[in-house]
Amino acid sequence: MFLISGYHAVESVLTSQPKLITKLYISRTKNKREVKITTLAKTADISFELIDSKKIDLIVNHSKHQGFVAEINNPYFLTEKDITQRLKNMKTSKVLILDSIQDPRNLGACLRSALAFEFDAVIINKDGSSPINEYVFKTSVGAILNLNIFYVTNLSRSIKLLKDIGFWVIGLDGNGEGSIFSEEYTSKTAVVLGSEGSGIRKLVKENCDHLIKIPISNKIESLNISVAAGIIMYELKKQHLN
Amino acid sequence: MFLISGYHAVESVLTSQPKLITKLYISRTKNKREVKITTLAKTADISFELIDSKKIDLIVNHSKHQGFVAEINNPYFLTEKDITQRLKNMKTSKVLILDSIQDPRNLGACLRSALAFEFDAVIINKDGSSPINEYVFKTSVGAILNLNIFYVTNLSRSIKLLKDIGFWVIGLDGNGEGSIFSEEYTSKTAVVLGSEGSGIRKLVKENCDHLIKIPISNKIESLNISVAAGIIMYELKKQHLN
Repeated sequence: MFLISGYHAVESVLTSQPKLITKLYISRTKNKREVKITTLAKTADISFELIDSKKIDLIVNHSKHQGFVAEINNPYFLTEKDITQRLKNMKTSKVLILDSIQDPRNLGACLRSALAFEFDAVIINKDGSSPINEYVFKTSVGAILNLNIFYVTNLSRSIKLLKDIGFWVIGLDGNGEGSIFSEEYTSKTAVVLGSEGSGIRKLVKENCDHLIKIPISNKIESLNISVAAGIIMYELKKQHLN
Repeated sequence: MFLISGYHAVESVLTSQPKLITKLYISRTKNKREVKITTLAKTADISFELIDSKKIDLIVNHSKHQGFVAEINNPYFLTEKDITQRLKNMKTSKVLILDSIQDPRNLGACLRSALAFEFDAVIINKDGSSPINEYVFKTSVGAILNLNIFYVTNLSRSIKLLKDIGFWVIGLDGNGEGSIFSEEYTSKTAVVLGSEGSGIRKLVKENCDHLIKIPISNKIESLNISVAAGIIMYELKKQHLN
């Protein structure tokens, strides 16, 4: 359970998964946005309280809420047992696998890009990753509500399941022998990215079919993880179009 | 003037621009990292103080400094008058233009990617952008010290100067008529990115030769700005290699 605030954030939950909302506070302003949010809430049968903007400051501990705050339950996530059934019949499919991403902002930005580049699923290891909290929600700009997210305990086992149903699994790794420039992507591809500090864990890496890298200047060690994720997802989307 | 902390951050300043350092504190630990930093400091003739780790906590207001903190002057930036001379004789060149990026973490990540993809210059509008501070420094992982950064007051005028010396100037814009997928990049290309909320400003946009977009799902409005910057820089680097 966590708080989200701001017009766009609250609007996106009311539009896509209103049932997640356990409490909703709106400041009395009588402007268009208030009308929009109260109308959406009524339509979705979500009760709300009109309160003073200053009271919302106290609830969220800041003043950038634009008069809207909602307490929401964690979104519903799929699990390992859903992988095979959900993905086996797809002829073309792109899956993102995130191994132990620590920074909630990076995690959120990866989810935002996954939705932007039409990925069919994101698989996240439950233990060892940043929890899904308000920062993830905010930086994902609501993408979290519109993606198939699989929350699993064992990434290596999930990768094996993907391989069984025809996925080619690529790991993005600074020491990868392949290059993102020359890789030929199959119609069913999963891409694995590791944590900010130490990359993909050893066992998970061993389960990848191929390790590739994004070639960069030797003046710098690596790209930001959400930038690297965005680039590989962009490239995959592009190749699938051709 | 700002504080930077952490082993890698302090090491990168000592290695690339030690003269920026006005104060250097190191905690007494007698480990390899302490030896490395003190050796670098001595070599660069930078005086330092060995103090208790708890005292460093008080200086930086957190405890994630790993025993290293430096107070540094703002790095030296180039100005508008340097643009022509620095870039006119290049046969192949890539320039990044950042219009009013507000979030220091986004700005830092853009600089990190610019160094990674071997951009020759980054042009930033001084007024209206996030100031160069410790967050920019940290998220740029020191890239800021190894890039040619032009800090200018008038981006439109800088764009005109670039055009005069043969640059083709592309703006990244959600409503752009071209697509990053099909754009053909010239050997001297500058790319403009606008602020997180409102994109490239009107006048700056009008000075671009072509506006292009990164095609994304209609389920989401935009990519994170540092992800979008990373993607266009990646694509440009790739095309320049071919």
